Amino acid sequence: MAPAAGTVLPVLDEPAAPCCPPLTERPLTAGEAERTAAMFKALGDPVRLRLFSLVASHEGGEACVCDISDVGVSQPTVSHHLKKLKAAGLLTSERRGTWVYYRVEPGVLAAMGQLLTAR
Amino acid sequence: MAPAAGTVLPVLDEPAAPCCPPLTERPLTAGEAERTAAMFKALGDPVRLRLFSLVASHEGGEACVCDISDVGVSQPTVSHHLKKLKAAGLLTSERRGTWVYYRVEPGVLAAMGQLLTAR
Repeated sequence: MAPAAGTVLPVLDEPAAPCCPPLTERPLTAGEAERTAAMFKALGDPVRLRLFSLVASHEGGEACVCDISDVGVSQPTVSHHLKKLKAAGLLTSERRGTWVYYRVEPGVLAAMGQLLTAR
Repeated sequence: MAPAAGTVLPVLDEPAAPCCPPLTERPLTAGEAERTAAMFKALGDPVRLRLFSLVASHEGGEACVCDISDVGVSQPTVSHHLKKLKAAGLLTSERRGTWVYYRVEPGVLAAMGQLLTAR
């Protein structure tokens, strides 16, 4: 439903993956597992994982399709995978001129890393 | 091929996921991504991720199917998922009496956690 004119929308600044304590600390709840598995699943494809690492390690912490040329898949396929990573909450994007620039969602790496920290 | 009698077999103690530097440091190679994506994929299913957290956080760091009852899937399904986690190199198993006990492959959590560490 569209908000009524003048309605102040709540700011949804909930971090994307502030989810969970280390996996060694306690079992995840069904809800936590649902949310978090979607992120792992997005990284569970070799091309997508490689693209994620390309964006994460790119100069300035961001990259556009124009920066990516050596992963052995076409530019539309690269775009498709980057959109999936964004949909999973792993990347954010911003259009600047012709290109959409992607960067790693702040906090996501830290949160996922914490999840995988041994107690 | 079976080894000849008296042949000393090489010890395959290659850690399961010593793979890679932090994703923010440099892009993964195709080979690194292939190996690592398989682990993320194994955690990319909500039930499997939950089971992994159950094993990882269980008393003594190990659990058998007999310890797992509240994830809403049947025991054969639990067994199936635990085997998949083992095949991905995330769990090890040991049969003791009637039950197979699973524990988190040492080093795997640390290696995956390091991969997801921000620079």
